[in-house]
Amino acid sequence: MAVKPLSDRVLVKPVEREEMTKGGIYLPDTVKDKPQEGKVIAVGVGKRNENGEIVPMEVKVGDTVIYAKYGGTEIKEDGETLMILRESDILAIKD
Amino acid sequence: MAVKPLSDRVLVKPVEREEMTKGGIYLPDTVKDKPQEGKVIAVGVGKRNENGEIVPMEVKVGDTVIYAKYGGTEIKEDGETLMILRESDILAIKD
Amino acid sequence: MAVKPLSDRVLVKPVEREEMTKGGIYLPDTVKDKPQEGKVIAVGVGKRNENGEIVPMEVKVGDTVIYAKYGGTEIKEDGETLMILRESDILAIKD
Amino acid sequence: MAVKPLSDRVLVKPVEREEMTKGGIYLPDTVKDKPQEGKVIAVGVGKRNENGEIVPMEVKVGDTVIYAKYGGTEIKEDGETLMILRESDILAIKD
Amino acid sequence: MAVKPLSDRVLVKPVEREEMTKGGIYLPDTVKDKPQEGKVIAVGVGKRNENGEIVPMEVKVGDTVIYAKYGGTEIKEDGETLMILRESDILAIKD
Amino acid sequence: MAVKPLSDRVLVKPVEREEMTKGGIYLPDTVKDKPQEGKVIAVGVGKRNENGEIVPMEVKVGDTVIYAKYGGTEIKEDGETLMILRESDILAIKD
Amino acid sequence: MAVKPLSDRVLVKPVEREEMTKGGIYLPDTVKDKPQEGKVIAVGVGKRNENGEIVPMEVKVGDTVIYAKYGGTEIKEDGETLMILRESDILAIKD
Repeated sequence: MAVKPLSDRVLVKPVEREEMTKGGIYLPDTVKDKPQEGKVIAVGVGKRNENGEIVPMEVKVGDTVIYAKYGGTEIKEDGETLMILRESDILAIKD
Repeated sequence: MAVKPLSDRVLVKPVEREEMTKGGIYLPDTVKDKPQEGKVIAVGVGKRNENGEIVPMEVKVGDTVIYAKYGGTEIKEDGETLMILRESDILAIKD
Repeated sequence: MAVKPLSDRVLVKPVEREEMTKGGIYLPDTVKDKPQEGKVIAVGVGKRNENGEIVPMEVKVGDTVIYAKYGGTEIKEDGETLMILRESDILAIKD
Repeated sequence: MAVKPLSDRVLVKPVEREEMTKGGIYLPDTVKDKPQEGKVIAVGVGKRNENGEIVPMEVKVGDTVIYAKYGGTEIKEDGETLMILRESDILAIKD
Repeated sequence: MAVKPLSDRVLVKPVEREEMTKGGIYLPDTVKDKPQEGKVIAVGVGKRNENGEIVPMEVKVGDTVIYAKYGGTEIKEDGETLMILRESDILAIKD
Repeated sequence: MAVKPLSDRVLVKPVEREEMTKGGIYLPDTVKDKPQEGKVIAVGVGKRNENGEIVPMEVKVGDTVIYAKYGGTEIKEDGETLMILRESDILAIKD
Repeated sequence: MAVKPLSDRVLVKPVEREEMTKGGIYLPDTVKDKPQEGKVIAVGVGKRNENGEIVPMEVKVGDTVIYAKYGGTEIKEDGETLMILRESDILAIKD
């Protein structure tokens, strides 16, 4: 069963912290809004601007992204913990 | 008697928590804005943008949706508890 | 003496709670923003968008509506308690 | 000496509470934002929208209006207490 | 040395309270945002709207205006206390 | 080494308080948002409006300006304390 | 592995405080939003305005910038601490 994000939302599978020891992002405990890394699983069609046109998405399925965790909503699908974020909560793509 | 949501609102019948043991969404008690799952019963015509045009809805009757509970309003019709949400409070469609 | 709402406002006569025992909306005491039911008595011409055009109203006189009570203002006319709401505070039409 | 409201502002002479015993508006003490009734003395030319056009006013001199008191500013002219409000703080016209 | 207000700002010389005993505005001590009266000394060119056009000012040099004191900034020039306000903080012109 | 402000920002060299005894601006200790005077050292190109056009700046290098101190950021360059402000934080030009 | 900022975001390598003793920016301990200096490593394509057009970036790779630290997010890549900022959090370019 697939989860299809609405509007400019993105479905992300977070990278486990254990996997981030080498070259991964740093998560200092004192920073309350910690950036996190994840893999894009699905993307929405994009939001509409005031002229009614769909704004194209910058991220695509398969991208590794750095995102601000606070903006998203955590869901569990088939035992996996996933995040649904707006694209504006994604800071950068790693490639 | 039918309930017809206004503007970009959506009428949703929540899926009972008991039905979500397999492959359903996870509802951790510590997360205050828990995502929830439901079936779309009725949709509004869509809101108007600044040019006066109706913005088409992404969800349709029959869709199973994941939504942020805090945005909606709970009503009871013919003994059933239903939610009225704006489409922007719906995170994703499951199919 | 008639009350003519301005802009996108709507004059609503609330349905008494005693009349809502059958098929009416549920008003849980723990929910602080309780939805309510009423009859539309009068509607404004609609608000103007940024292009100066009047946005047509979705509700009309005679509609039974479900509305969020917090948004409106209570007035008393000829001994009757009425509500003046913006259309955006009306969640749905029942028909 | 005349007071000419700017933009979409309206000068209103409030109706004294003593005059409101018959068919007047109800002012419950528990409601903090009490609606009030008054006579329109002067109106501004209207505000400009984003295209630079003046948005026409809905109220006119002589109208009896119901308004939300919190939005306005009380002034005293020639011993009279008057209110300066934005038109958006006026809920309805009585006629 | 002249002070030229920027954008839609207005330079106002407040009328002293002692001069307001006859027909002046009323300043109740319990109201925290007291309206005040003043003479317009200088006006900005006006602000630009989203289309890049300058929105013409409604007030002009020499006007006696009623303004909300909280919005402005007090300056002292050549021993005189003056106020710099945005035009939107001016409620009305007296003439 | 030159500092080039971005967008609608302005680089200002504050006038020392000691220099403001004659005809300068008054800085009452009780007012928390004190206006200040300074010389414009550099200006940005201006911000873009929604149509993508650069909005021209009103202030230019060499202007003496009165500004609201709270909006700016203090930096030190070559031993000098300078302020970087948005043009909207500048209240007036003195000439 | 490269980090590609999204929208109008910029990847900045902060200049160490030890390197700022000569002609660098001053960081008073009492100012809570301290400006900081850094080198631009990567820039996003720019954000889209309401017409769907990409707004060109003012900063480019290699620029030395002064930025407000509070707006950005700190990440660690290959042992280096970097900042991801929106261009609007960058105050000025030094050249």
